[in-house]
Amino acid sequence: MYEETVLGIDLGGTKIAAALISPDLKILWEDKVPTDACSGVEGVLSQLLELIKTASAYAHPTAIGLGIPGPLDRKTGTVINAPNLGWHHVPIGRLLEEAAGIPVLLENDANAAALGEQVFGAGRGVSDLIFVTVSTGIGGGIIVNNRLVEGRNGGAGEIGHIKVVEDGPVCGCGQRGCLEALASGTAMARTMVERLSQGEESLVRELAAGDLCRVNMVIIGQAAQAGDPLANEVISDAMRYLGTTLANLVSIFNPELIIIGGGVTNIGPLLFQPISREIQRKAFPTFADNLSIVPAALGSRAGVLGAAAVARQYLLDRQE
Amino acid sequence: MYEETVLGIDLGGTKIAAALISPDLKILWEDKVPTDACSGVEGVLSQLLELIKTASAYAHPTAIGLGIPGPLDRKTGTVINAPNLGWHHVPIGRLLEEAAGIPVLLENDANAAALGEQVFGAGRGVSDLIFVTVSTGIGGGIIVNNRLVEGRNGGAGEIGHIKVVEDGPVCGCGQRGCLEALASGTAMARTMVERLSQGEESLVRELAAGDLCRVNMVIIGQAAQAGDPLANEVISDAMRYLGTTLANLVSIFNPELIIIGGGVTNIGPLLFQPISREIQRKAFPTFADNLSIVPAALGSRAGVLGAAAVARQYLLDRQE
Repeated sequence: MYEETVLGIDLGGTKIAAALISPDLKILWEDKVPTDACSGVEGVLSQLLELIKTASAYAHPTAIGLGIPGPLDRKTGTVINAPNLGWHHVPIGRLLEEAAGIPVLLENDANAAALGEQVFGAGRGVSDLIFVTVSTGIGGGIIVNNRLVEGRNGGAGEIGHIKVVEDGPVCGCGQRGCLEALASGTAMARTMVERLSQGEESLVRELAAGDLCRVNMVIIGQAAQAGDPLANEVISDAMRYLGTTLANLVSIFNPELIIIGGGVTNIGPLLFQPISREIQRKAFPTFADNLSIVPAALGSRAGVLGAAAVARQYLLDRQE
Repeated sequence: MYEETVLGIDLGGTKIAAALISPDLKILWEDKVPTDACSGVEGVLSQLLELIKTASAYAHPTAIGLGIPGPLDRKTGTVINAPNLGWHHVPIGRLLEEAAGIPVLLENDANAAALGEQVFGAGRGVSDLIFVTVSTGIGGGIIVNNRLVEGRNGGAGEIGHIKVVEDGPVCGCGQRGCLEALASGTAMARTMVERLSQGEESLVRELAAGDLCRVNMVIIGQAAQAGDPLANEVISDAMRYLGTTLANLVSIFNPELIIIGGGVTNIGPLLFQPISREIQRKAFPTFADNLSIVPAALGSRAGVLGAAAVARQYLLDRQE
């Protein structure tokens, strides 16, 4: 029988969230603090140890899962690159393990969130699913046969960097035509601003009080819901790219479920309807039948709960 | 210790191949016979039983893996659709299991071939790889953490049906713009014939003795190797689509290795060079570093050896 408590920590550029999880998947305690990224690795390490100490007052964790905003090397517990933290090649896993005296497992934050939704959220009881999160960027994680697809160094699942337009707009990763550069909230806002700058008319201009710097997804979503043609076009173009990409992932993974999270899901049917249509049209025949497409259930807590699930999985594997 | 012999059978539309595999992965016996598809399910079932009987003279297999050319339901052992056999909803797994008295495990043929290459061929010792086969069609299989990505009903890995061109040419699956409709041997031959019909010049016309019905990949490859510009253009356009698709799969899976099989690999560097270049340009940054791209090692035997590996994996799982 599984009887161990685990601690999940989601280490972000602006905040650190932690959750202590009981053997029967209850949340025993959770908290979050602003990340003191300016004080460097040592400062953040102290923050992590403080959270562990507080958690341990409730129950002693047997392992820690640590979600990281960037590529990492799971085997050595090293963060390869985390721009939001200003970290390059930081062996945070080893440092934390030495200081805390229990195993620390690193996982990419989007992958952790996918696992969080599977264990605690919209994917409970589903063994094969695709999780995608659409906000300022596009991230994701894929679960096959109840396991995260990790790849060589835990970096798999870079859905946002699938190329969807040959020589398309430049992406934050430095390449061109990535899904993220065409269908993220940031990309939609940029497209809208470009088209307004070219003199096209839209309710967005009024809602932004004429200031194009204020154009964002909230405003674009409001305009679209009020029937504004340009806002609807910008969203549906972006969602076609996202839908095509998800259709291709369905042909590859033949999953039971797609979970879509992130701030952009607030636009509701404007997002889900075109995505669903593209998947029906473009996924390998029959794979779209009985495929569910649902909103994420955990919001920003998916990452921290998923980090705990990573630690739990490690302990379960060790038990075998 | 693992001590069981398994039988792999690759059930194709034109031939049935079988191989008996020892616990230490030696091939004890192998054979192939033309498929008697005209005699229906019963006829093919007799052929399978005959092969099992012959194999059993060498050693009694404990389980059978059966590769199927089409979608299937692994749980019920049913072939959903196999056009080359004229089968629809045939419970071949159950029928064979009842007749042979040992477990029968079904697997899609391309997925089985991927596993064959991993266990016996170009992917030995590699836990995360992508296998793609390019011949008249494009198929593939993906291995994550030493396991085939199966999906809901063993149909995962439909690499050939990833959409690469919006409203592109019609594919055999009935949809448009699939990779298979743009980069398979059939697709390249069709493109070449179209361009020759429009009056473009190419050495291919001479090599086909003026008869456009004789244009195939062998001829196109010969022309390209002789420096023919149109043949080189047709191939490089197709390989760019394949390379982009593989780059996207690298961003998703972050694998160690890509194995490329199928008749079209005979064109050698004309295939591998553009693919490699696209992957370098388009895969998520760093994922293409230390990624190997190699030709398949087993040729047409990948399927039957992979089918045996499926049976072996089943027995290993049962042992746990």
